[in-house]
Amino acid sequence: MYRETIKIMDCTVRDGGLMNAWQFDDDFVKGIYTACVDAGIDYMEIGYKSSEHAYSREENGPWKFCDETDLRRIVGDNNTDLKLSAMADIGRIDEEDIPQASDSVIDMLRVACYTHQVDKGIALAEHVLDKGYETTLNIMAVSTTMERDLDEALNDIAKSRVKAVYIVDSFGSMYSEQIQSLCEKYRSILGDDVTLGFHGHNNQQLAYANTVEAVIRGVDMLDGSLLGMGRGAGNCPTELLLGFLKNPKYSLRPALQAIQDQMIPMQQKVDWGYHLPYMIVGMLNQHPRSAMACMDGDDRNNLTGFFDKVTDEAIID
Amino acid sequence: MYRETIKIMDCTVRDGGLMNAWQFDDDFVKGIYTACVDAGIDYMEIGYKSSEHAYSREENGPWKFCDETDLRRIVGDNNTDLKLSAMADIGRIDEEDIPQASDSVIDMLRVACYTHQVDKGIALAEHVLDKGYETTLNIMAVSTTMERDLDEALNDIAKSRVKAVYIVDSFGSMYSEQIQSLCEKYRSILGDDVTLGFHGHNNQQLAYANTVEAVIRGVDMLDGSLLGMGRGAGNCPTELLLGFLKNPKYSLRPALQAIQDQMIPMQQKVDWGYHLPYMIVGMLNQHPRSAMACMDGDDRNNLTGFFDKVTDEAIID
Repeated sequence: MYRETIKIMDCTVRDGGLMNAWQFDDDFVKGIYTACVDAGIDYMEIGYKSSEHAYSREENGPWKFCDETDLRRIVGDNNTDLKLSAMADIGRIDEEDIPQASDSVIDMLRVACYTHQVDKGIALAEHVLDKGYETTLNIMAVSTTMERDLDEALNDIAKSRVKAVYIVDSFGSMYSEQIQSLCEKYRSILGDDVTLGFHGHNNQQLAYANTVEAVIRGVDMLDGSLLGMGRGAGNCPTELLLGFLKNPKYSLRPALQAIQDQMIPMQQKVDWGYHLPYMIVGMLNQHPRSAMACMDGDDRNNLTGFFDKVTDEAIID
Repeated sequence: MYRETIKIMDCTVRDGGLMNAWQFDDDFVKGIYTACVDAGIDYMEIGYKSSEHAYSREENGPWKFCDETDLRRIVGDNNTDLKLSAMADIGRIDEEDIPQASDSVIDMLRVACYTHQVDKGIALAEHVLDKGYETTLNIMAVSTTMERDLDEALNDIAKSRVKAVYIVDSFGSMYSEQIQSLCEKYRSILGDDVTLGFHGHNNQQLAYANTVEAVIRGVDMLDGSLLGMGRGAGNCPTELLLGFLKNPKYSLRPALQAIQDQMIPMQQKVDWGYHLPYMIVGMLNQHPRSAMACMDGDDRNNLTGFFDKVTDEAIID
């Protein structure tokens, strides 16, 4: 699959950090950065931009905040073709925490919001544009959103200055036919001049397959992470995207280097990936919190017990 | 997805045995059998039917041969709705090794062959039919077969008495568009009265996704294995099929029971699944033997070295 407009966004540090509270050492982050530069990846999402009022420094590593001094310790002035991104969650950041883009090595600030927060999401994304950044709006958990509410949110975005919007399979519950249907909906409401993105989760081993489906349906911004490191079951593996996309700028070998040097050792310490508790909540279209609690407990292999609990709790008439 | 004609074939013991020479203890095989019965699975492939001239008993466990006495020790007379299957490879079995179906608890014998062996495959499959079994013909490695050779093989099958044919992604190299194209080809040459099947491998995390694609394209016999246990990167996880297919006869919970009791302990001993050497050969559309050797060696995490070796060796002008 070759299309010049396709871009890869590697989220290893940002989404992977949800599994270890961003307690990565500098060598790890530098290794991922170097791999992204050498592999020809378009964007690296290096963390969250968050307010220190919202999260504590004691519990969270530097990539929850993405201070300029921390960033420059890794990337210098980033005189490369790789663009750097950080994510901002609605309500977890104040406008005054965001410097002018000209004072930052960050190129893009992505705004994540739920459908019911789309007005706040648009406002923050437009604020970010005014400060000189690229931006995207990532609408989370659309698999549990009523269709008319999603339509209304997309119509609001269509009237805004936001020109890049992500389809997010937050719960890893979708398969190809849902991706196809959402791609058609987003395109028809947002129009042809908006770039679409896709961010998948791997609860049912479909993050990569759904990303390929999204590409076929006209999506151009593709999120991945090395060895799929991300919350719970993780994300689409960036190495699979590099193997799939036909564009001479991409190179798989640097990604393999980072997987052997950084990701395989990390996998010994942090246990993301396809585990049955994540599969079960994905199949049920539920938030992964119950599965994450199960995986952190002593009873993680009691799968029937977990299944009985979540299916019983799900009954609500 | 509901279609009454869809059947699940669990291959945990047969394909999983490729990773441990079928050295399963009886409790393991009984656990898988019980799970298949209780989950409402349609077929369980319990091993290979092979000649003792072709393989040694010292190196291979009983499920490489599927003697009637071994089978009955696990399933008795199998007075259940679950049908039992065994696989036969061309050239690895003699006709006299196959009892009459009325003397066996085996219901189906599947014949695996390469495109260039299709005449032998058809002959063995028709012999098996004459002995009273159900049969399928599984054409391996079609991702490295020239289109006119595949067309000729399919035309030969169309003239035979074989009424079930598998699309097999032996190298785990295909994605949805290839599945779609092969489904159309098989259907157009074989006609509407032939049942199509799909057997995937998970080198690129696409075994389940490709199976779903095959279902959408009219394929009715779906191979899976519990926790995906199978050669190299493994197969489509049966538990994902049970979650996906909408048919009240299927039940996920018994599969979870076997995963916690049999498969998770097995995973501590046998290392199938998504590992980068398998991903690399899948991406390159190569047989997994080099990746399996890499995984068995001391240098399994030297991914760049493995990548350099296989891409260098692949150059042949």
